[in-house]
Amino acid sequence: MQKNTTPCYYGDYLQLDKILTAQAPESAKYANEAHDETLFIVVHQVYELWFKQILHELKAVMAVFAEAEVKDQQLTGIVHKLKRVISIQQLLNQQIAVIETMTPQDFMSFRDYLVPASGFQSVQFKMLEIGLGLKSEYRIDFDKNSFYSRLNEKDRHFLEALETEPSLFERIEKWLERMPFLQLDDFSFWQMYQNATEQMLDEDASTVSGIEQIAEQERQLQLAEIERTRAKFAALLDKDKYQELQTDGSFRLSQRAMLSALFISLYQEEPVFNLPFQLLTCLTEIDENLTIWRYKHAMMVQRMLGTKIGTGGSSGHDYLKRTTEKNRIFTDLFNMATFLLPKSDLPVLPEQIKRKLGFYFGPER
Amino acid sequence: MQKNTTPCYYGDYLQLDKILTAQAPESAKYANEAHDETLFIVVHQVYELWFKQILHELKAVMAVFAEAEVKDQQLTGIVHKLKRVISIQQLLNQQIAVIETMTPQDFMSFRDYLVPASGFQSVQFKMLEIGLGLKSEYRIDFDKNSFYSRLNEKDRHFLEALETEPSLFERIEKWLERMPFLQLDDFSFWQMYQNATEQMLDEDASTVSGIEQIAEQERQLQLAEIERTRAKFAALLDKDKYQELQTDGSFRLSQRAMLSALFISLYQEEPVFNLPFQLLTCLTEIDENLTIWRYKHAMMVQRMLGTKIGTGGSSGHDYLKRTTEKNRIFTDLFNMATFLLPKSDLPVLPEQIKRKLGFYFGPER
Amino acid sequence: MQKNTTPCYYGDYLQLDKILTAQAPESAKYANEAHDETLFIVVHQVYELWFKQILHELKAVMAVFAEAEVKDQQLTGIVHKLKRVISIQQLLNQQIAVIETMTPQDFMSFRDYLVPASGFQSVQFKMLEIGLGLKSEYRIDFDKNSFYSRLNEKDRHFLEALETEPSLFERIEKWLERMPFLQLDDFSFWQMYQNATEQMLDEDASTVSGIEQIAEQERQLQLAEIERTRAKFAALLDKDKYQELQTDGSFRLSQRAMLSALFISLYQEEPVFNLPFQLLTCLTEIDENLTIWRYKHAMMVQRMLGTKIGTGGSSGHDYLKRTTEKNRIFTDLFNMATFLLPKSDLPVLPEQIKRKLGFYFGPER
Amino acid sequence: MQKNTTPCYYGDYLQLDKILTAQAPESAKYANEAHDETLFIVVHQVYELWFKQILHELKAVMAVFAEAEVKDQQLTGIVHKLKRVISIQQLLNQQIAVIETMTPQDFMSFRDYLVPASGFQSVQFKMLEIGLGLKSEYRIDFDKNSFYSRLNEKDRHFLEALETEPSLFERIEKWLERMPFLQLDDFSFWQMYQNATEQMLDEDASTVSGIEQIAEQERQLQLAEIERTRAKFAALLDKDKYQELQTDGSFRLSQRAMLSALFISLYQEEPVFNLPFQLLTCLTEIDENLTIWRYKHAMMVQRMLGTKIGTGGSSGHDYLKRTTEKNRIFTDLFNMATFLLPKSDLPVLPEQIKRKLGFYFGPER
Repeated sequence: MQKNTTPCYYGDYLQLDKILTAQAPESAKYANEAHDETLFIVVHQVYELWFKQILHELKAVMAVFAEAEVKDQQLTGIVHKLKRVISIQQLLNQQIAVIETMTPQDFMSFRDYLVPASGFQSVQFKMLEIGLGLKSEYRIDFDKNSFYSRLNEKDRHFLEALETEPSLFERIEKWLERMPFLQLDDFSFWQMYQNATEQMLDEDASTVSGIEQIAEQERQLQLAEIERTRAKFAALLDKDKYQELQTDGSFRLSQRAMLSALFISLYQEEPVFNLPFQLLTCLTEIDENLTIWRYKHAMMVQRMLGTKIGTGGSSGHDYLKRTTEKNRIFTDLFNMATFLLPKSDLPVLPEQIKRKLGFYFGPER
Repeated sequence: MQKNTTPCYYGDYLQLDKILTAQAPESAKYANEAHDETLFIVVHQVYELWFKQILHELKAVMAVFAEAEVKDQQLTGIVHKLKRVISIQQLLNQQIAVIETMTPQDFMSFRDYLVPASGFQSVQFKMLEIGLGLKSEYRIDFDKNSFYSRLNEKDRHFLEALETEPSLFERIEKWLERMPFLQLDDFSFWQMYQNATEQMLDEDASTVSGIEQIAEQERQLQLAEIERTRAKFAALLDKDKYQELQTDGSFRLSQRAMLSALFISLYQEEPVFNLPFQLLTCLTEIDENLTIWRYKHAMMVQRMLGTKIGTGGSSGHDYLKRTTEKNRIFTDLFNMATFLLPKSDLPVLPEQIKRKLGFYFGPER
Repeated sequence: MQKNTTPCYYGDYLQLDKILTAQAPESAKYANEAHDETLFIVVHQVYELWFKQILHELKAVMAVFAEAEVKDQQLTGIVHKLKRVISIQQLLNQQIAVIETMTPQDFMSFRDYLVPASGFQSVQFKMLEIGLGLKSEYRIDFDKNSFYSRLNEKDRHFLEALETEPSLFERIEKWLERMPFLQLDDFSFWQMYQNATEQMLDEDASTVSGIEQIAEQERQLQLAEIERTRAKFAALLDKDKYQELQTDGSFRLSQRAMLSALFISLYQEEPVFNLPFQLLTCLTEIDENLTIWRYKHAMMVQRMLGTKIGTGGSSGHDYLKRTTEKNRIFTDLFNMATFLLPKSDLPVLPEQIKRKLGFYFGPER
Repeated sequence: MQKNTTPCYYGDYLQLDKILTAQAPESAKYANEAHDETLFIVVHQVYELWFKQILHELKAVMAVFAEAEVKDQQLTGIVHKLKRVISIQQLLNQQIAVIETMTPQDFMSFRDYLVPASGFQSVQFKMLEIGLGLKSEYRIDFDKNSFYSRLNEKDRHFLEALETEPSLFERIEKWLERMPFLQLDDFSFWQMYQNATEQMLDEDASTVSGIEQIAEQERQLQLAEIERTRAKFAALLDKDKYQELQTDGSFRLSQRAMLSALFISLYQEEPVFNLPFQLLTCLTEIDENLTIWRYKHAMMVQRMLGTKIGTGGSSGHDYLKRTTEKNRIFTDLFNMATFLLPKSDLPVLPEQIKRKLGFYFGPER
């Protein structure tokens, strides 16, 4: 490794001349500086720095998935990068506690100067949403209208171009579809799986019918829910039914990708599935953390504004809350528990397959 | 202080013979012990211990508010106890990360043995809800039917009796109503307040109209929202209108209590309001933390079960999510920002009132 | 409040053109870009942004203490700002988890390019240390030599000038010295206090002597410790003895300031002391959080480097650990428990004094 | 899976009759109930419940390592359990914030009743220390005397027996020693490694000599440190030198185990090393979290007691702080960075070995 040729100085290296001079409160321009506006600026700049870091990780992850083949060695690095994203998200969620040290009254002392700026104008946040897979067709209705409305032309064009590129969701879907594990010819795995799950649902139905303490109205709701789940199970292995459920939004992943994800989840303890399962778990957690961030953020906005309008002219928190439930990406993974079986009920894998799932040269062989 | 007469031993003092022998996995009784069932038991026992602690704090707080008069000295202790509750809640929220180390598949290995037990049977959690003020009339519809349905008779009667006792919400309401700050005869505070807020709403309306980037549909929604806020403002000082909004659920606090809470919030920096304002803030945060706990808990259940039914026969997470938004108690405080003014727009308090709000004997006088 | 005259755009307001273009990995300049160097840069930039915010709060706090008199109204704001500092510190402590997602091997892929830059060159961190009160005379020996050695001339001069200005520690000390509570002529508080504490120490000594399970060697250590504490108590009210202990570093606060702080701590529940006690608690927590940060930071450096040298040529973690214990500021407050009495043993304040400590116009009078 | 035969009720299942009746404040027995003693009891009971859970996980992990061979499938489960332990530890560390809501004065209102009980009497905590590998010979001197002194005979005998059983440290050491990776006959890995590290140390020495800003005294310290590191490197591959450093405490792992751990760390990205590397990382983090807990706990005790003695007659915090640095177990893993090389400087593994480290049947082959 080559040594550096010019000595490095902390402040120059971090470009602190730019970083630490970028806080210019609007209130000061009106000769009415609000002490807390600096906090408001710093909090958002920190968010943007972390967004940049998350995008840096995602870009590296995407580059690997863009290749024709993802090597096992590369999965180690991918999982590592996604875990870093999760770690950053946990920090972002805790950061809300800092902005909450600003009282609503303090916020009001400079709110009006910021009109019509809005957090909806964060290009990096939108890059993150699009990059993960929250493209226009998947956004909640309100967003379809307003996602781009507050942006200037340059930013809008940049993001619209991004919508045409493959998202992480799409890359993962393709990767799952390529998995060879499902061709296990002489092993009727899916038949055995189907039998096991039917039995499980029958037992669930009999449980609901058997618990006296459930009010009749609730019981009917539960039984209907079990029937819906039964339909989903049936669709898993039926191309047409699956497509129907995909169209109505019950599934987002393609059938083939869904089956691969399910197989990995069922046999997660097999060493060969360790990294793929970690990967799926990371995606679930990234989605979950994003949702929790949206939720806490919506509550913070409500506490700050009540039913007042935000600086961008939106009554923010209602809208924000609607996004928490709907604007999610890897819901198929998040709901995977629906399709799991207890380990003890899992069809035993034939020895020849089991052997293939181990290491060629394991520590103890 | 009297010294103790018998030596104390750590394990006896903590009654560890009871605490550490209270984990009996159901799966073990069926000769099929699931490793993770111990975690499931311990997590819930820890929850119950913390609930006991929270109830201990609330009981002490309630005892003070039950007195005819709350002395300033006592407010210090009340705020201290409520801050402890908040600290415990933050821990409870983080504790969800521990239960999330159990995979859905691990949970399935003992789920069936627990039927029909359910977290809805936690008497202490229901004591907490009722004690804070979430009595039957305020619960979401679903809860009205099912709140008591899973409990045995003894537990049900115990809780039903509790519903007839004053809740923290009611105690606080009475305390706020008793506040003498609003009789400021020769100072037409509320008139000045009304003028200031009308001007603020007019400006908000003109802001919404003036921002080009807002889609027309959204603009109309915002303007309607501003009109609703205007109606709320008008109701603040109008007995009949207020009662209407109270009936439709827009307000829960009585008008008099609401005005006291607003006055405290507006002049929160006056020393005499420091403790009352801390108290109101604590209540808001307790409510917020409970909501965040419900939300994270609902997501954890979804991740654990997908759309499967829970051990108590409920498809838990949908229901749980519905409770997050509706089953809240101190929403009037949470939405207080609606009615605040920037400090600079606040009517200046007359000197004779200002003097009354300071200390008789302050450090520097 | 005047409305703004030019529309505000999110990216311009936050100067994202500067913030998001300030990441230039050194490794890229050597055509050997290390993926993780971006994280390294971003983490440090975020630290610097938060340092700027903390300095912003401290500056506002210091400005108030610089006045001849601190009004009660102002204490509300001071405590609020210090609580924000604590909230930011908690985030900084959690942020270490993010940097720990970088493995030692990843760090090595760019470490050499950064020579001789070093975290010891962070001017803002040194401003914070000096501003709080960690001036040269109080630094650990090692620091006395090296605190300035790695800085360029401009930075060194800037900081050296800062050392001549009053620190927060000094401001607080003066403020405590000005407190009038100690002139309670006809009330021999300190005499009663001394009697109560002597009795307490006698009991402690008899406790240590009476516990059989303590090894003899340990018992002697404890008894010696109790004698040291007795000497400290004696010094509290004896000018010459106090000065001795101040000289040897057992106390840092002046005697008068120490007595005020003690009085506030003893009667912390009196409303008039609520804000002063919150203030002292905040200072303790700021010191504690700084110490925990130093400790976690030292462990992170050890994990990253082992016994290798850092980029600035220091074997960082040993030095860093030495700073955790010694480089502290408000240790007198942190150790205050030494001098406290249980509430039940406190001398009862005479009615005429008690009345003075309440509000002139309390809610229920 | 067999269904349960008797219906399960939440409160019975969790044995809440035992759990929630186990709080008996000593102060109440002296007709002087201290409100905060309940918190003190609950906090410690929660700690004990979590200790029980951690011991449950460790027991399962130890059972696997006790087998002659650890299968790859089993490593998945081991890593999963250790990650759960880490998750619990993080909660324990945050829990200190709850106990810190008790003021020193509040603690004093019941402290004397608890004499001579002490946290040093927690049998489970000592089981944890011994089980991880902190047996008598590795404890700090003070502990050698006092570890058992406060326990009753039954507890002492129980723990002394435990000291004779293999600890996790010993199990891991054996497992590392069994690793076959080091017999790579025709591949002179260690020779190449040695060359690379010597070059690295030379460069470090020249860096330290070349940085002008370092004070001369500091420079000499650094150069001495580099020589010590050089000696350690030399010892890695020299049986006698290694034994010397093991005797003086510089290494605790056997030479063979140390080399395996190093090899795993160097090639951590190879899929076959993914789980072993995760395992080593978990052990490091468990040790680190235990240390942070000790440190925060010591600070909490200092804040609560100052220099007063604790209920067990010890002046707790000084002792506690001494344990943080010394009472550590997996320091060899924690210091592993000392021996790492950047990936780019790593000897390339011969193709035939590389192939062996992959999966027999990878997703894309």
